Amino acid sequence: VLELRIEPLDADAMRDARAELEQKTKPRGSLGRLEVLAVQLAGIGVSGPRCAIVVAAADHGYTDEGVSAYPAEVTRQMLQVFASGGAAISVLSRLVDAELVVVDAGVREELDDPRVRSVRIGPGTANATHGPAMSRRQALDALEAGISLARELADRVDIVALGDMGIGNTTSAGALHAALLGVPAAAVCGAGTGLDPDGVRRKAKVIDRALAANGGRLDDPVDVLAALGGFEIAFLAGVALGAAAERLAVVLDGFIVTAAALVAARLEPTAVSYLVAGHLSPEPGHRLGLGSLGLRPLLDLELRLGEGTGAALALPLLRASLALLAEMATFDQAGVTDAGR
Amino acid sequence: VLELRIEPLDADAMRDARAELEQKTKPRGSLGRLEVLAVQLAGIGVSGPRCAIVVAAADHGYTDEGVSAYPAEVTRQMLQVFASGGAAISVLSRLVDAELVVVDAGVREELDDPRVRSVRIGPGTANATHGPAMSRRQALDALEAGISLARELADRVDIVALGDMGIGNTTSAGALHAALLGVPAAAVCGAGTGLDPDGVRRKAKVIDRALAANGGRLDDPVDVLAALGGFEIAFLAGVALGAAAERLAVVLDGFIVTAAALVAARLEPTAVSYLVAGHLSPEPGHRLGLGSLGLRPLLDLELRLGEGTGAALALPLLRASLALLAEMATFDQAGVTDAGR
Repeated sequence: VLELRIEPLDADAMRDARAELEQKTKPRGSLGRLEVLAVQLAGIGVSGPRCAIVVAAADHGYTDEGVSAYPAEVTRQMLQVFASGGAAISVLSRLVDAELVVVDAGVREELDDPRVRSVRIGPGTANATHGPAMSRRQALDALEAGISLARELADRVDIVALGDMGIGNTTSAGALHAALLGVPAAAVCGAGTGLDPDGVRRKAKVIDRALAANGGRLDDPVDVLAALGGFEIAFLAGVALGAAAERLAVVLDGFIVTAAALVAARLEPTAVSYLVAGHLSPEPGHRLGLGSLGLRPLLDLELRLGEGTGAALALPLLRASLALLAEMATFDQAGVTDAGR
Repeated sequence: VLELRIEPLDADAMRDARAELEQKTKPRGSLGRLEVLAVQLAGIGVSGPRCAIVVAAADHGYTDEGVSAYPAEVTRQMLQVFASGGAAISVLSRLVDAELVVVDAGVREELDDPRVRSVRIGPGTANATHGPAMSRRQALDALEAGISLARELADRVDIVALGDMGIGNTTSAGALHAALLGVPAAAVCGAGTGLDPDGVRRKAKVIDRALAANGGRLDDPVDVLAALGGFEIAFLAGVALGAAAERLAVVLDGFIVTAAALVAARLEPTAVSYLVAGHLSPEPGHRLGLGSLGLRPLLDLELRLGEGTGAALALPLLRASLALLAEMATFDQAGVTDAGR
């Protein structure tokens, strides 16, 4: 359905990177996961440290069911804070010197701010407990808008980090995890931004109702996305796919972004090799989602904010792995005795 | 024995930081461990992001017992690589914009390089399986040299990361962990830079012999340090103590630096509140050492290199916590609805 061609990673480049790392002045493998990361980035073809953080926001019909501690208008308010520079992700994007791209993928009320990129698919999704959250056409439009942004970013960055904002979107992400992984709603539901245990149980029941209401439409991944997803999740799945097609590394954030990655992986399994898991969310479903993608998170700092904060904090680790491969001296260059030969 | 005054953390500053974090545009506590870190740094009095990485190197009499996969001359060779910019820690210090201070605390053969700071306590320690690795006077000299460096650094940095180099020093660190924590040598010994299982068992036996040879001298922490330690470990313990006295944050690296921190903590328990654990080493003793200090590592990337690499990689997280506290907008400033009130 999508015009997309994702190449496998470059096996020769990965072999060369492994061989080069063997020659660096350090015991073999002693840089641990940074070596694995350097090899993956070599396979992707990442040649520089330039990063963009794409934060997409949208509203969710699920909020009609009382699934969040926060009112829906906070989505739009936070979009404004992202743009004006006072949000956590605004601070972190400046700190790590990454371009912050703030996207309105469909908040209820449009925001008139030139710093927010508008790719509005609609004024928030419909309530998925009564039927699909969006139409199949809307899901495809959101995916294509994400692919299009990735193609644009490919001209100026090497790495794309993904982030989300959307009151109610742990419910959408939970529904997508449950449907795509075939696990019960209760296994993927957590406190989100601050629910109590009763609230978590209520959220799981909302997911069960959404799954039941859409039961006949859960075969094709685009249909699953349309039935249960959010506009920001669909858009971010598109960014992941487009970035992989452009041979950019894609850094995942928490539970919501991983739901987008699950959708992308169902559409194009090759895309998974371009993904890096930035951070482990405390949401119980996140471990299941990452596990199904075969990804291990780089960080576990108990962040549960979203916005791409966990992905942003992982960017220095990607840059470190690139710099170590590029800049470390070899045993021969440095005149150091290599016990491992 | 040491001229040192370490104040407790500033409880008022910590309370103010907590209150400020509550007002930021995010769900309460949603920045997880970065919030805990921001509060600790406020209590220490860290006001800026300026960092130094102190890497101290020394040789060890333990190497006479065949405890390392590498020959002892590699210590001196690597000291040269640190200074000339090709080592992993050289690359990372540039990447994170930290001043790298390379210290010869006592390698066997002196290095004539103006980029290496010489605080040579001796030409490597004695073989501790026959008696003390160094004299009590040498241990005190090394501690004082470290304190002195920290006092100098306090004029230009806010945060000090510690790193080590010394072929054979996982044996010294293991002996110090075993003696100070009262655990068997076998519980703290791992592969270091690349021992096979037989080598690990041999290393544990070397530690047992060192403990037996020094059995009468293991009460006072300076005596323990002198009996089992290395010059770089003693020096780094001094840096940690001096940094705490100067209200700098101290970022620990792996197993060897943590041995220095254990010594510092026995000498001045208040120093512990100035410590941040950067990284978890795969060496089995490291978890025990950090646990006894009540510290949780920020990173777990399976690094087993030392040099301060794990501490250096944690520095962006400290800076992130500082920037988030300083720069994020509050709910009131941003006009965002705060559901948590």
